[in-house]
Amino acid sequence: MTGPSGRPEQAGGAMPNRRLRLGMVGGGRGAFIGAVHALAARMDNRFELVAGCLSSDPARARASAQDWFIAPDRTYDDFQTMAQAEAARADGIDAVAIVTPNDTHHAICRAFLDRKIDIVCDKPLTTTLDDALDLVAQVRRTGLVFVLTHTYSGFPMVRQARAMVAAGELGAIRLVHVEFLQDWLAAPLEDQGDKQALWRTDPQRAGPGGCIADIGTHALHLARYVTGLEVEAVAAQLRSFLPGRRLDDNAQLLMRLTGGAEGTLLASQVAHGNECGLRLRVYGERGGLAWDQERPNHLCWAPAGCAAQTLSRGDASLSAAARRATRLPRGLTEGYLEAFGNIYADAAGAILSRRQGGRPDLEDIGLPGVVDGAIGIAFVEAALRSQQDRGAWVEISLAAGRI
Amino acid sequence: MTGPSGRPEQAGGAMPNRRLRLGMVGGGRGAFIGAVHALAARMDNRFELVAGCLSSDPARARASAQDWFIAPDRTYDDFQTMAQAEAARADGIDAVAIVTPNDTHHAICRAFLDRKIDIVCDKPLTTTLDDALDLVAQVRRTGLVFVLTHTYSGFPMVRQARAMVAAGELGAIRLVHVEFLQDWLAAPLEDQGDKQALWRTDPQRAGPGGCIADIGTHALHLARYVTGLEVEAVAAQLRSFLPGRRLDDNAQLLMRLTGGAEGTLLASQVAHGNECGLRLRVYGERGGLAWDQERPNHLCWAPAGCAAQTLSRGDASLSAAARRATRLPRGLTEGYLEAFGNIYADAAGAILSRRQGGRPDLEDIGLPGVVDGAIGIAFVEAALRSQQDRGAWVEISLAAGRI
Amino acid sequence: MTGPSGRPEQAGGAMPNRRLRLGMVGGGRGAFIGAVHALAARMDNRFELVAGCLSSDPARARASAQDWFIAPDRTYDDFQTMAQAEAARADGIDAVAIVTPNDTHHAICRAFLDRKIDIVCDKPLTTTLDDALDLVAQVRRTGLVFVLTHTYSGFPMVRQARAMVAAGELGAIRLVHVEFLQDWLAAPLEDQGDKQALWRTDPQRAGPGGCIADIGTHALHLARYVTGLEVEAVAAQLRSFLPGRRLDDNAQLLMRLTGGAEGTLLASQVAHGNECGLRLRVYGERGGLAWDQERPNHLCWAPAGCAAQTLSRGDASLSAAARRATRLPRGLTEGYLEAFGNIYADAAGAILSRRQGGRPDLEDIGLPGVVDGAIGIAFVEAALRSQQDRGAWVEISLAAGRI
Amino acid sequence: MTGPSGRPEQAGGAMPNRRLRLGMVGGGRGAFIGAVHALAARMDNRFELVAGCLSSDPARARASAQDWFIAPDRTYDDFQTMAQAEAARADGIDAVAIVTPNDTHHAICRAFLDRKIDIVCDKPLTTTLDDALDLVAQVRRTGLVFVLTHTYSGFPMVRQARAMVAAGELGAIRLVHVEFLQDWLAAPLEDQGDKQALWRTDPQRAGPGGCIADIGTHALHLARYVTGLEVEAVAAQLRSFLPGRRLDDNAQLLMRLTGGAEGTLLASQVAHGNECGLRLRVYGERGGLAWDQERPNHLCWAPAGCAAQTLSRGDASLSAAARRATRLPRGLTEGYLEAFGNIYADAAGAILSRRQGGRPDLEDIGLPGVVDGAIGIAFVEAALRSQQDRGAWVEISLAAGRI
Repeated sequence: MTGPSGRPEQAGGAMPNRRLRLGMVGGGRGAFIGAVHALAARMDNRFELVAGCLSSDPARARASAQDWFIAPDRTYDDFQTMAQAEAARADGIDAVAIVTPNDTHHAICRAFLDRKIDIVCDKPLTTTLDDALDLVAQVRRTGLVFVLTHTYSGFPMVRQARAMVAAGELGAIRLVHVEFLQDWLAAPLEDQGDKQALWRTDPQRAGPGGCIADIGTHALHLARYVTGLEVEAVAAQLRSFLPGRRLDDNAQLLMRLTGGAEGTLLASQVAHGNECGLRLRVYGERGGLAWDQERPNHLCWAPAGCAAQTLSRGDASLSAAARRATRLPRGLTEGYLEAFGNIYADAAGAILSRRQGGRPDLEDIGLPGVVDGAIGIAFVEAALRSQQDRGAWVEISLAAGRI
Repeated sequence: MTGPSGRPEQAGGAMPNRRLRLGMVGGGRGAFIGAVHALAARMDNRFELVAGCLSSDPARARASAQDWFIAPDRTYDDFQTMAQAEAARADGIDAVAIVTPNDTHHAICRAFLDRKIDIVCDKPLTTTLDDALDLVAQVRRTGLVFVLTHTYSGFPMVRQARAMVAAGELGAIRLVHVEFLQDWLAAPLEDQGDKQALWRTDPQRAGPGGCIADIGTHALHLARYVTGLEVEAVAAQLRSFLPGRRLDDNAQLLMRLTGGAEGTLLASQVAHGNECGLRLRVYGERGGLAWDQERPNHLCWAPAGCAAQTLSRGDASLSAAARRATRLPRGLTEGYLEAFGNIYADAAGAILSRRQGGRPDLEDIGLPGVVDGAIGIAFVEAALRSQQDRGAWVEISLAAGRI
Repeated sequence: MTGPSGRPEQAGGAMPNRRLRLGMVGGGRGAFIGAVHALAARMDNRFELVAGCLSSDPARARASAQDWFIAPDRTYDDFQTMAQAEAARADGIDAVAIVTPNDTHHAICRAFLDRKIDIVCDKPLTTTLDDALDLVAQVRRTGLVFVLTHTYSGFPMVRQARAMVAAGELGAIRLVHVEFLQDWLAAPLEDQGDKQALWRTDPQRAGPGGCIADIGTHALHLARYVTGLEVEAVAAQLRSFLPGRRLDDNAQLLMRLTGGAEGTLLASQVAHGNECGLRLRVYGERGGLAWDQERPNHLCWAPAGCAAQTLSRGDASLSAAARRATRLPRGLTEGYLEAFGNIYADAAGAILSRRQGGRPDLEDIGLPGVVDGAIGIAFVEAALRSQQDRGAWVEISLAAGRI
Repeated sequence: MTGPSGRPEQAGGAMPNRRLRLGMVGGGRGAFIGAVHALAARMDNRFELVAGCLSSDPARARASAQDWFIAPDRTYDDFQTMAQAEAARADGIDAVAIVTPNDTHHAICRAFLDRKIDIVCDKPLTTTLDDALDLVAQVRRTGLVFVLTHTYSGFPMVRQARAMVAAGELGAIRLVHVEFLQDWLAAPLEDQGDKQALWRTDPQRAGPGGCIADIGTHALHLARYVTGLEVEAVAAQLRSFLPGRRLDDNAQLLMRLTGGAEGTLLASQVAHGNECGLRLRVYGERGGLAWDQERPNHLCWAPAGCAAQTLSRGDASLSAAARRATRLPRGLTEGYLEAFGNIYADAAGAILSRRQGGRPDLEDIGLPGVVDGAIGIAFVEAALRSQQDRGAWVEISLAAGRI
């Protein structure tokens, strides 16, 4: 069957008989990521946005709700009320998107988990490992679907890379180099009232990690997602290059990974000329892969001893995982919103499956979840400890198999 | 005001108090472009898809309508019935998207124009210039909004290029080289039952031009859109390289443009290694611009005597036209669907304006319309005449100012 | 055997028992191309520069000769004296490099041909077809080696492309697009006393073709060299965009080639942002090739239906023709001088072979010669005739097999 | 004055009244780097190769000497004899190029230093820091010119980057990321008799460092050369990924640099798809620079808050240091041999200056010397110590100002 997106097979599986009802906490006017979630959720017509608590400021919350045509009676001033009211409605939301600053994730997630509402939550998961592990426990207890929006795992060519590693095309992985370089905080935007900069450089809102948490966890997840390896230990240098900045705006780490692999992770918000430079390189016994978020529709594949190839989204020869994440023919560009849409489409599939009594396995589907979130926080904490110990090696006790 | 997409200014202007109701003709299961229109129309939450005649096959039409949650009573078996019924409803569609093969555009457009329903129509406009000019006349007569989806004009960096030319940053334009190279028809897919290939290589469905009409008109529009120049004469070679293929699969043209400029246009469906290679280069007295659809978020700008610069979607210094077509921060990739979404968002703005008594000027808004469509068909006919005359120069009598 | 350049096989074959003695006409201080010839000739230690008439200005000629450690008694004030004197010496030059402006090539070539001295001459061959054909006749009469420095044929990856086409890897060639875009004459340098600009825009020195002769012939030769096809007819637009400039600074042509292929040729000196943009694309039945002079160590190869590959200079799997033109391991960059050096190394091989009684076939060796030069001039003349006839198609009577 | 290379200003200064006489130790048939040195030394006509001890195998030494037309009486079987004989000749060599495996550098350098012969030596300088410091002392004692061929410092755009940092265009440097990734040793070539692989993986010939010494020192020097910063401490992971390989084939390091900068260094011989991937990125307060050896004619410059620029070798606006290292107009490609030639041309200038009683300052000229070599060895030793201590941080006591 071909679905409305024109894909023979598509993310999220067959179309359901109704759109899922989505609520949103955070993401009102002026918030960048809220609109992204809303666009992505609606992209494949699997969700409709019907309820929201879009701002901690009530007036902004209501105005923002109007923008999305959310009915006034489903526009809430606080998330607790929303969770309670929606859980009580016959037509209550099926899932909630949580797109608030990091420090609020834990409480909001708890409120909705406690009311048996599936969750799509932005990253990083929490600001402490304890909170993260509590969420892991609650998700396990409730059996709910909990998707963490490590967006980049939604790119078709990232899924292709993952499938190639899983299929053994690279042989044993030796090296994993991942970097996420930006330059938007090379200027002291937080001193100029920039809303995004303000909370992301505020330890109260963002947590103890700055750059390392905000984008370092994305880089970590990308590396883990593609290679299937876990980081066992890190030596980290975290820095705040701008005078007076309270959180790190640059991080560089050496990593030891499972299976004897090694690698590096760079994250920066002050690297002039880098817009959103998320790049992954993986080298194994039998070949190497390179992917760049700024050219996301291609994947460089260098099989040992052969000419390097450029694999292209839409190629008929790609893996099933890549093909089902694809909407357009090769050559037309898909980007960040489409990748985000794939996360939501797959989330819809998982939520439907759960509601029909299934036990969807996010790992199998290729969806990042609460455990990935906890591993990210453990990574941040290890990096911070290493930094406090002048870059000494720190083991990460937490890894997928051990939670 | 910031709208739901997070943009301070945004395509289509301020949000209306309701979504526009969209119908669609064509685009059912298995059709690539229908899903694209639907995604694009819904992207910024300005349209909802409420009615459709999604296939000439009634069973497919109904099944496809279910995919989009279109109510059974608004699922139509033929477009005439749909036009009549929707025009009669109080909650009838505000606009219709026409995404059928080329040979049907004229009749369908007439049906909806006659019932005062605004139109978003796929390209090329028609299969004959007479039909095209008839639509121009009807649009003028009715005052309706008629948008032609030359998608590439929706890319932010294309709009940036247009703004730079219009602002005189390049000085007088000297050279315009545009090419649209693909390779998907290098194999005889029409002999293998491929639905897209079948109708596009069939003169009955596609019209007398193959490649020249299907993608040559896109290339032409891109060149005209950015430079504001018209093609006055062409010398063309059209070829069908595959044995037995009835329409051209390759075209190459020399062009004379208004203002003393010259240029070339290449279009191919058999150029191995080109996926969707739409590339524009414009050279003026004071600098040169280059844009590539496969890297759409950047624009190469070479001011005379200075180092070449890479302008990036999202840069604060870009033109208003580029900024309002932008959803994401720089570095995150927007692609084809977002460009398409910009066309629809702007179409929504124009339709709302017309309904409120305004007379929206598509040229000002930066939207391709019915006149652009007619110019495209005149270009195709000139190319065909040149080919019949072994590549001799042929004047194009039709240009924007002369229709 | 490995020669001094470290190549197991190398251009020019085994090292001779002495360096060939080279003279040079033109190329003194201030001339760009003279130094290039001297560097290239000396690169592989097959030539030593021992005599010269390096400038038409005697003082400059002598000073320039000192720069190259040329003995005073072999420093000449005019080329006739040089030809005569060197021919009379027991240790006279084996070959002469002619690097003067175009209008002088014919007379100088005749002087040295008449004295049985092999020639390496810069392009374009002459300023008229009659002169060119006279040189063809003289070369045939004398049996001398006459190499025309269409430098780009010396690049290893160009030779690889040629070998792939010859081996049938692309199947029948359908399309040949070649362009040579520069921007150095976008400013009126000839009005500012720039020596290079002065003679290249002067019909007395350069001949009737400007850009079309200066770099258009390079582009033509590259296309012919790689594909083995001849241009049968052209439709050309030549322009001089700068006010008062007497020769064309821009050219664009449609081409019909042998074997039913088609193509385009662009040449410009006013395309802002293009430094030395010589780019060739060849599309055949079975695949496509793309090469760019600014990234000369790689060749893009798109076999039909497969992922595109990046072939790299130094790959063990390349053709013998590419490998023998290679000095460095893959990844290290070779450039223009090395390509030029390959022409000279092969010229040395041919000259030695001739002196040992052989009849070296430049076509087999992959060296451009006098016939290529004449074809270039015929092409320029056809383009000029087409331009005079407002872009009408003009047949080229002259092609390799027909001279 | 314009020299023979056509450069108004050129590396090495004005042409001398004779070519310098060069001898070579090592570099006979089958050796890659010997031919490179010979080509580079001869490129600008400042050296002639007149004596050699080109192989430790006498027959090979003599055959190789014939390839270069070296007179039999200046073809030596051992370097001691050569040093002694050449020092005794009135027309003895002015300088010697030492291109043997690492373990022999110290003894050979001593032999020629003791006889007051200037030296151009390949890297790494020695296999132990003691040997390196001994050479530093001897060079200081004798006042001779000692150039170490860290080739990449000869690239014009590397010199441009250095000049920009020195001029303060980047402000204070914050981050320095350098990598040198190759894949040629991803296969066990040493087990297949490959000569280059054999000695480079043999601790007796190469010293205790493998990849870290062979290419890691190149990367280190490039970073130091451009930024003017010294590495103060490293945390290193060195690995030998291939079973049985005795020296590291991969290295990754965190670095603390002077001035509060940080950075990373990657070196690998097993990273599939990387041919000669030497890439440097430098981020300062006011902008960022990126250079890639595989595209050496360009430099990416991202000034804070502005569009990124592509600076091009040959641009008139470049620094004097870049311009004098340039032979060709912009757009034509110069590569590795030209960079190497710049080292030799500058070495010639320094040697001439010394012979005329000057005291040439290699640092000012931009030439790598014996102190750079010693710093490289100190870096290798620190990396090895860190590796032995499981990646712990190790301070480097040795830096330019402290030797």
